[in-house]
Amino acid sequence: MSMSVLRTADAWWVLTPTGASHVHTDATTTGQLLADRQAVAAAAASGGSVAVTDLSPISPVTAPCRLIAQMINSVSHVKDTGGNPESAPLAFFRKSSSSISGPFDDVIRPSHVRLLDYEVEIGLVVGKHLPVGTRISEGTLSDYLAGLVVTNDVSARDVQLPSSQYYEGKSYPTFTPVGPLLVLLDADELKRFGDLRLKLWVNGELRQNMPVAGDMIYQPLEALQSLARFQRLDAGDLILTGTPVGTAISAPPKAVQTLVSLIPEETKWKLFFQGQSRNPKYLKDGDVIEATVATDGGAIDLGRQRTVVRDAG
Amino acid sequence: MSMSVLRTADAWWVLTPTGASHVHTDATTTGQLLADRQAVAAAAASGGSVAVTDLSPISPVTAPCRLIAQMINSVSHVKDTGGNPESAPLAFFRKSSSSISGPFDDVIRPSHVRLLDYEVEIGLVVGKHLPVGTRISEGTLSDYLAGLVVTNDVSARDVQLPSSQYYEGKSYPTFTPVGPLLVLLDADELKRFGDLRLKLWVNGELRQNMPVAGDMIYQPLEALQSLARFQRLDAGDLILTGTPVGTAISAPPKAVQTLVSLIPEETKWKLFFQGQSRNPKYLKDGDVIEATVATDGGAIDLGRQRTVVRDAG
Repeated sequence: MSMSVLRTADAWWVLTPTGASHVHTDATTTGQLLADRQAVAAAAASGGSVAVTDLSPISPVTAPCRLIAQMINSVSHVKDTGGNPESAPLAFFRKSSSSISGPFDDVIRPSHVRLLDYEVEIGLVVGKHLPVGTRISEGTLSDYLAGLVVTNDVSARDVQLPSSQYYEGKSYPTFTPVGPLLVLLDADELKRFGDLRLKLWVNGELRQNMPVAGDMIYQPLEALQSLARFQRLDAGDLILTGTPVGTAISAPPKAVQTLVSLIPEETKWKLFFQGQSRNPKYLKDGDVIEATVATDGGAIDLGRQRTVVRDAG
Repeated sequence: MSMSVLRTADAWWVLTPTGASHVHTDATTTGQLLADRQAVAAAAASGGSVAVTDLSPISPVTAPCRLIAQMINSVSHVKDTGGNPESAPLAFFRKSSSSISGPFDDVIRPSHVRLLDYEVEIGLVVGKHLPVGTRISEGTLSDYLAGLVVTNDVSARDVQLPSSQYYEGKSYPTFTPVGPLLVLLDADELKRFGDLRLKLWVNGELRQNMPVAGDMIYQPLEALQSLARFQRLDAGDLILTGTPVGTAISAPPKAVQTLVSLIPEETKWKLFFQGQSRNPKYLKDGDVIEATVATDGGAIDLGRQRTVVRDAG
């Protein structure tokens, strides 16, 4: 049975039909909480009486942790850039876990960033220590994958793209809102992963809306198998699984990209940024971002994130 | 006065004119040792009698830590690829700290990797907590930069290049030999950073040999200032500063690169790998890699690393 965990500044909670129930645990990190899952289960069983609306959720994933993201992992996203989903590599990059923020915190635009973009993604929360070389199968997946969270992989396109490596452009503080819920799933529930649908709105306008099934190229099992070749993982680490089509950035068609490759780097980026600066979809001060991940029937629901964009003071 | 720290499986040591001196400390991580620098100074002052040749040094930088690397940061390296050093961005990527190994450990080639390459680099060891937003000046640099180590940023070119993000191709276990010495430098000694020369030999053949001054594009001060915009750092974190010309990979001239950009991705990589597979400079089982970083007069000397390449069993 799934359990929906929520974190406030000084406590952990689990949702029950009668309200939120306080988890009696000494855990101060997500990794520690996952090692004390019987406390979560006990709190769930005892029932709760605290109204969820009385709580102020912060990220249910604590930092520091390893924060890893899959590169382009969506058929709709690859096709939108004129690429071929068949040849998209299974590849990863790191984000700084200093970028993790709460599901209702502001997203701060650094003053040097002009092209601020959003990417709703499903976050995989690692459940236990995974040494390099571990073999993971369908049958043991749920040992290593404890649960799921809504994440927004906020991206400064004008830093990310010219530097070719995605690390800095996606790592500024508040560039990874997480939560509100960490939904712990058992092996059977994890099989419904493909039924999840990702949605993201800006100022009430639906910009991203795509199910996992038929769109996500590499599933969590393949992602963890690939990571296990080179990256030790521990309970509480977070893996972002890629965003579907609908972000602000408008990739030019393949033919234009090929032509552009003949232009020197500096000129190319100048032209690209000039074009993108007229694109009204990039985030600006005051914009409200909402993001959800759930099955269409609501059997699995990671909750609704609501963040407001603010310029750095 | 500089202090040369060395680590063995169960102790820390500091070099003295009469031999290695045992550091009396409870530190088990590099961060903890840097917080106990008075113990290092006391051991250095008391003199030592242990022959360094009797010790088996392991990496003086402990994992887990943040392991960050600068992208191409060398005039000679940029020119070799037909690029313009003036327009090289100051950019970073992450390596897994699971890749850290000792200065005399084997470098293990994973069985799926065909194009294994070396990159001698100077490693910066962070000296104290550096929150995002910290302003660092020439005058405060030595507060945050505790010392230097020899590193080899071992790279699986056939994984690194097609995935575009460098993380996996540089993160396999043993892909970051570190040490033997962690040389702690004061503010005046750090000013001699430009006098350091990087050298790397394969089977006795000198492949890389370049001073910092005139070749390194972004110096440690600029690197730390740039990181402080987005990445919290802590004592014991390690930053690799980029390698000079001379690695195995032979970048084709700019004109060829432009032509190649017109070919579909899969075909392009197939052609590239076919060409590179005839390049005898890539590392193979039994190859001996030696690497040093020192000023030409030897006033600052980070020691000599010697690793042997082995195929995964």
